Amino acid sequence: MIEKKVGKGEVAFKVTHCGVCHSDVHQARNDWGNTNYPCVPGHEVVGTVTAIGEGVSKVKVGDIVGVGCMIDSCQKCEYCEADEENYCQGEKGATMTYNGPMIPNGTNTYGGYTTDLIAREEFILKVPGKLEPEYAGPIMCAGITVYSPMRHWDLKEGQTLGVAGIGGLGHMAIQIGKALGAKVTAFTRDADKEEELLEMGADKVVISKDDGQMKQAAGSLDMLINTIPVPHDLEPYINLMKPDGNIVIVGNLVKFPEFSPASLVFKRLSIVGSLIGGIKQTQEILDLCAEKDIRPAIKMIDIKDINEVFENLANGTTEGHFRHVIDMETLRNHEAVRNEDSEKIEDPIRA
Amino acid sequence: MIEKKVGKGEVAFKVTHCGVCHSDVHQARNDWGNTNYPCVPGHEVVGTVTAIGEGVSKVKVGDIVGVGCMIDSCQKCEYCEADEENYCQGEKGATMTYNGPMIPNGTNTYGGYTTDLIAREEFILKVPGKLEPEYAGPIMCAGITVYSPMRHWDLKEGQTLGVAGIGGLGHMAIQIGKALGAKVTAFTRDADKEEELLEMGADKVVISKDDGQMKQAAGSLDMLINTIPVPHDLEPYINLMKPDGNIVIVGNLVKFPEFSPASLVFKRLSIVGSLIGGIKQTQEILDLCAEKDIRPAIKMIDIKDINEVFENLANGTTEGHFRHVIDMETLRNHEAVRNEDSEKIEDPIRA
Repeated sequence: MIEKKVGKGEVAFKVTHCGVCHSDVHQARNDWGNTNYPCVPGHEVVGTVTAIGEGVSKVKVGDIVGVGCMIDSCQKCEYCEADEENYCQGEKGATMTYNGPMIPNGTNTYGGYTTDLIAREEFILKVPGKLEPEYAGPIMCAGITVYSPMRHWDLKEGQTLGVAGIGGLGHMAIQIGKALGAKVTAFTRDADKEEELLEMGADKVVISKDDGQMKQAAGSLDMLINTIPVPHDLEPYINLMKPDGNIVIVGNLVKFPEFSPASLVFKRLSIVGSLIGGIKQTQEILDLCAEKDIRPAIKMIDIKDINEVFENLANGTTEGHFRHVIDMETLRNHEAVRNEDSEKIEDPIRA
Repeated sequence: MIEKKVGKGEVAFKVTHCGVCHSDVHQARNDWGNTNYPCVPGHEVVGTVTAIGEGVSKVKVGDIVGVGCMIDSCQKCEYCEADEENYCQGEKGATMTYNGPMIPNGTNTYGGYTTDLIAREEFILKVPGKLEPEYAGPIMCAGITVYSPMRHWDLKEGQTLGVAGIGGLGHMAIQIGKALGAKVTAFTRDADKEEELLEMGADKVVISKDDGQMKQAAGSLDMLINTIPVPHDLEPYINLMKPDGNIVIVGNLVKFPEFSPASLVFKRLSIVGSLIGGIKQTQEILDLCAEKDIRPAIKMIDIKDINEVFENLANGTTEGHFRHVIDMETLRNHEAVRNEDSEKIEDPIRA
């Protein structure tokens, strides 16, 4: 019983849902060369509290909770003090929910594609009552990733936000930007998406492969959330910016081709990067999504279909821009889990 | 007599000194493809007021004044209102001191390689009594170009400033950064410069082609002023930054080769551009240089040597890192100027 393993300050929960992030595919397949096997992916984890350790006051048994991309940090560096554990500068840095650092004892961390999870209280998020649990997972990854830069670089009501690349991150950025009072322009290659994006909340849709439309949008943006996950020329996007504009790179670790800093200089533009967000902001965006009826587009799947989903994500053959969410009851009911003889991976040592 | 031509709100001054900026060479040679001939370069102009127009209260006849890179702007857009005329968003934008926009009447603007200049009061700078006039010119171009981003992105006392590329801009950045209370690290390819840069005020010198030294400096900078004027790999400099660090690109319009945004994302770094600075900040940096004994390294030249100086600047064969400053008495005494039959270019229509 996992409940018996809960330590001081820790929370155990039964996983009910886990979102499938594209990075799960990269990590499981060791695309970044840093995977520690066995690897249990999943950092959009939602479930019901089954036990709390000594001293836990944030949640109680029966609460719906979530765990996002991190499960530990030093809790005392300048960044942790500022509620930005994602940039923790402690010795180990932030510990990722799965495939976390092996320091100091050589153990791995295992993520949310599982039946039960334990995490320390500080990294437990509360899923608001108004938010259906199946939607919470993607908000703790895609949602926070686009929300955090909007807050950090202070997107103001009435300013113009561009969103380039309308996938898991982009479709959240449109809705969240709108909720923060921005005028939102969505940039897509696909003219067929226009109506859908307007329905989603975009004030304007620009077809990025139409030079005329791109030219007309020149100098119109205060901020651009650039989620395009493949190498692409930055200059057409640089041209979209107003003076002092910010081009925010998220979810993209591929190289940009050469670019000219001339427009950066003449318009005092910034190209910035941003990585998920801290726990306080993650709670904020969960609450905001609950309150403002912002929901990720999701598709529920059975755990038995995960390999096919991975294959489609890897090949870019997923249809539509939604997040897959694993109904974890399907794992609990899976014969490999029910069979006591099934292969069992060692327990992770908790952070 | 130029004095008779001074209009309302304008100031006429006898030019005593004019700094030679590398961009003078580019502009005179039409390297950027936008030169309007005849072209009279010079935007580091210093002299003595000879006449003031109606309503002028900022200066009086006999005052030592300067004109930097701009001589006009709309004076009413958001940026002009915020004392950032350099980013003027009015119909014409900021009017450059020479080779300024031809709108609306098809005329050119002529710069400081001349005997006398007229400019509107708002763009006249006061050269403080403690600052020898020959040093003021480069401060209004190189000085403000590095000072403005330090102020805009709020370089704080005790923070670490890196300066890459130690030429006209870089040697001012070292001194100004120091005066603002930063710890300054200078990055140079040339190990022979170490002592000189320490004397200039750098706390530390890193030889940029020494991988070991670059590795040791990793993660040490809050801000980097990157003045390197030739294409170069950004990644070794990105590695130097602390989380939330700013890489400021100034004086560089050449393309950067491909780069990975991974470090931008993981450390929330910014790559930003900055263009000279507004008139208020330009006055500030003149005053700061006067007060803190900050002086550009200069070499006085005779106007008759200007073509040789241009040649050396274009070929990169200038020895040392100083700014050439034309002693404008040498122009006034030049036979072409003294001879009334010499070719005369039309008067510019004033902004």
